[in-house]
Amino acid sequence: MTLTLQDCRALDAQDPLRALRNLFHIPEGTIYLDGNSLGVMPRSAPARVADVVAREWGNDLIQSWNKNGWFALPAKVGDKIARLIGAAPGTVVATDSTSVNLFKVLSAAMHLAQADSPGRKRIVSERSNFPTDLYIAEALCRERGFELVLIEPEDIAAALTPEVAVLMLTHVNYRTGAMHDMAAVTAAAHATGALMLWDLAHSAGAVPVDLTAAGADYAVGCGYKYLNGGPGAPAFVWVNPRHTDRFWQPLAGWWGHATPFEFTPDYKPAAGITRYQCGTQPMISLAALECGVDTLLATEAHGGMAALRRKSLALTDLFISLVDERCHGHGIGLATPLDHAQRGSQVCLTMDRPHAPPLRGSLPPEGAPAALGRPGGGGGSVAYAIVQALIARGVVGDFRAGDPSTGSGRTGSPDILRFGFTPLYIGFEDVWHAAEHLRDVLETGEWQRPEFNQKHAVT
Amino acid sequence: MTLTLQDCRALDAQDPLRALRNLFHIPEGTIYLDGNSLGVMPRSAPARVADVVAREWGNDLIQSWNKNGWFALPAKVGDKIARLIGAAPGTVVATDSTSVNLFKVLSAAMHLAQADSPGRKRIVSERSNFPTDLYIAEALCRERGFELVLIEPEDIAAALTPEVAVLMLTHVNYRTGAMHDMAAVTAAAHATGALMLWDLAHSAGAVPVDLTAAGADYAVGCGYKYLNGGPGAPAFVWVNPRHTDRFWQPLAGWWGHATPFEFTPDYKPAAGITRYQCGTQPMISLAALECGVDTLLATEAHGGMAALRRKSLALTDLFISLVDERCHGHGIGLATPLDHAQRGSQVCLTMDRPHAPPLRGSLPPEGAPAALGRPGGGGGSVAYAIVQALIARGVVGDFRAGDPSTGSGRTGSPDILRFGFTPLYIGFEDVWHAAEHLRDVLETGEWQRPEFNQKHAVT
Repeated sequence: MTLTLQDCRALDAQDPLRALRNLFHIPEGTIYLDGNSLGVMPRSAPARVADVVAREWGNDLIQSWNKNGWFALPAKVGDKIARLIGAAPGTVVATDSTSVNLFKVLSAAMHLAQADSPGRKRIVSERSNFPTDLYIAEALCRERGFELVLIEPEDIAAALTPEVAVLMLTHVNYRTGAMHDMAAVTAAAHATGALMLWDLAHSAGAVPVDLTAAGADYAVGCGYKYLNGGPGAPAFVWVNPRHTDRFWQPLAGWWGHATPFEFTPDYKPAAGITRYQCGTQPMISLAALECGVDTLLATEAHGGMAALRRKSLALTDLFISLVDERCHGHGIGLATPLDHAQRGSQVCLTMDRPHAPPLRGSLPPEGAPAALGRPGGGGGSVAYAIVQALIARGVVGDFRAGDPSTGSGRTGSPDILRFGFTPLYIGFEDVWHAAEHLRDVLETGEWQRPEFNQKHAVT
Repeated sequence: MTLTLQDCRALDAQDPLRALRNLFHIPEGTIYLDGNSLGVMPRSAPARVADVVAREWGNDLIQSWNKNGWFALPAKVGDKIARLIGAAPGTVVATDSTSVNLFKVLSAAMHLAQADSPGRKRIVSERSNFPTDLYIAEALCRERGFELVLIEPEDIAAALTPEVAVLMLTHVNYRTGAMHDMAAVTAAAHATGALMLWDLAHSAGAVPVDLTAAGADYAVGCGYKYLNGGPGAPAFVWVNPRHTDRFWQPLAGWWGHATPFEFTPDYKPAAGITRYQCGTQPMISLAALECGVDTLLATEAHGGMAALRRKSLALTDLFISLVDERCHGHGIGLATPLDHAQRGSQVCLTMDRPHAPPLRGSLPPEGAPAALGRPGGGGGSVAYAIVQALIARGVVGDFRAGDPSTGSGRTGSPDILRFGFTPLYIGFEDVWHAAEHLRDVLETGEWQRPEFNQKHAVT
């Protein structure tokens, strides 16, 4: 398959989701392939946020809790997110951060497991799971006398022994874009008596998700990636209704109380998902999140998540084939599965050469922050420098450092060039240009310029 | 003392903080005495928030984490808050909710106590503490095999037995405005070997606080009350540097990691207060919080917190004397201490008659939300109806229902009419008018109108 620029333009012209690009503000001259890290701003967000600030806060003040629906906003936004992840109304709240929400549900799952099968004291997860999930699990295991076992994805079935209380996985891997079969993995966990907890950070709004059909037990996810909710937008939490009222979580703040405005000194958890709320939520950021979620719901009139998924796969297929065709001979490899069933909405490339030859000027300048050139920080990494060179050209992806302790067969995972393809606002022509820029960067060697080897942290 | 309206105007004219009122947007026709629940909007907030949304998020996108200082914002805002509470730079972060932060520090305090004095398994707090603090403490006690003992304020000294691991108090009581002597209570706790944890929700930005001088161990506080940070603004957390690195808290998310961007699978807590961060923070709301905190820092050129405190006491003294003078014969009582040393920045009134006689039309209309007239919800309460009648006149205070299980001598605490006096934007003339409105409401009996007996939750 060799597509021309004209072919890509034709694909854009036929794209049923094309009109939705107008819902977003895409900075001039930018091909933004980092929506898996921070989604772009919906055009509706500035006016909505301004209204929350000037009218709701500025004029209506305390009355807004009722008059402008602040009390109900975590549940209202949660119900909207529910439509994207196969959850019933009233089973999702938008609140806190993903890390805090993971703490809540993993804690609840551990309590549930201890009540039903006290012998199960093991949490299983992937070594390459997003680290904050592992840190929270490590903390809870330490608190509760559980054991955290980290495995490679191909070892999941073997790891599901009778000791396992909870299998905790991220649906789409943040580094590689590899996607688990949610229904099959959940069934495997349940078959061995383990509870199944999914982190949807890289799948909610990116791929079709059906928690109810899969029969999963708990889920959390992120508001600021594919949901376009703005920097640090509140996250969300879902609990299968069969568990919601059964167990309690220790972040027992007043927003999860059955009757918070009775101000009683003892805690009575609210029925349903409300008990997974804790404290007062940041309303301005939550309003921005609603604008972001609304952009996803706008797909419902254009074929919904199925149409989004078709376009996502077409975009990632196109990028993979263009890179394969044009960038060979430069040591580029593919970390993302070719199999559609195993692919999220991103493409992750690797470099054969993890480190650049020492170049004059590529060392950190004297007095530079210690982060420069720190281990894993990307200093001297070819992949890192390529990503920086692309950003300078307006093609925004990101870099994730390899980890020698991770990777199939413990060979260590490579450095990653990560490109997110968000079908709501990325078109086929964008993909064509992104691949062309990558070829140019590789062929000209411009990534070797010193300025592309200076490290700043990115998320 | 009988002050006239002219006297009050003269006091405003002489007020060294008067100019700071211009930093705020006060809605036309409103005397806002609820800054202890939600501070008014700084005039700087709309433009700052719009810039974070349109430029930082909209245009700079992912680069803003470094370019626009998002990574550093929790610490930057924390350092500003530190100046208001007697904390050293680098010892405060603005993050999460007060409830979540309380969980972090109470958990850390319990671990510390268990390491140093394993026999101490008791948390002591006030029965009339803000309930979310009690709920979090109850949850942690349940998790860790500790006991939560709730007492009346006059019983603190007697409760400090060798079993006590942590004394956890709110500096200024949310219902009564009564303030503890932070230095004396902290010293008493330490004298018996207990750790001291303060909730500054109703004191940070309201009264001078000096955590360092008091030698306190842990503190949390709220961003959306006296700090004027906007609805649900992130809260803050402080840990005395002598403890910060010694113990770990179980909300061990990646923002508290020593090197989050190495993405290592194991948790290594950062040095210092950074380890009390957990997940990604809501940047838009955090930017609004910074605007709010800046309004407090603006006092530094006008006499600082000492000047704020002088004005606060003058305002609450004035309100107390005006109410005493003009509203007698209506059953109004004072729940707030007359002694300056024991008073925060609010005045709380009680009513002799807790419940109104059944009035035609005061019952919830058919089909009204269940919250109407629910226990503790204020339906039928005279105090509740008076607050509603005042709000209709533009005098915004709030109502807190009594609790039969609370109060000195277990007589039950009364319903409260709560008025916050925020010296940054409340003037003496405002106080004069507020008292006049209260007199009118009582003398005309307009609080008996049915519309003032319909219940909506307020915070």
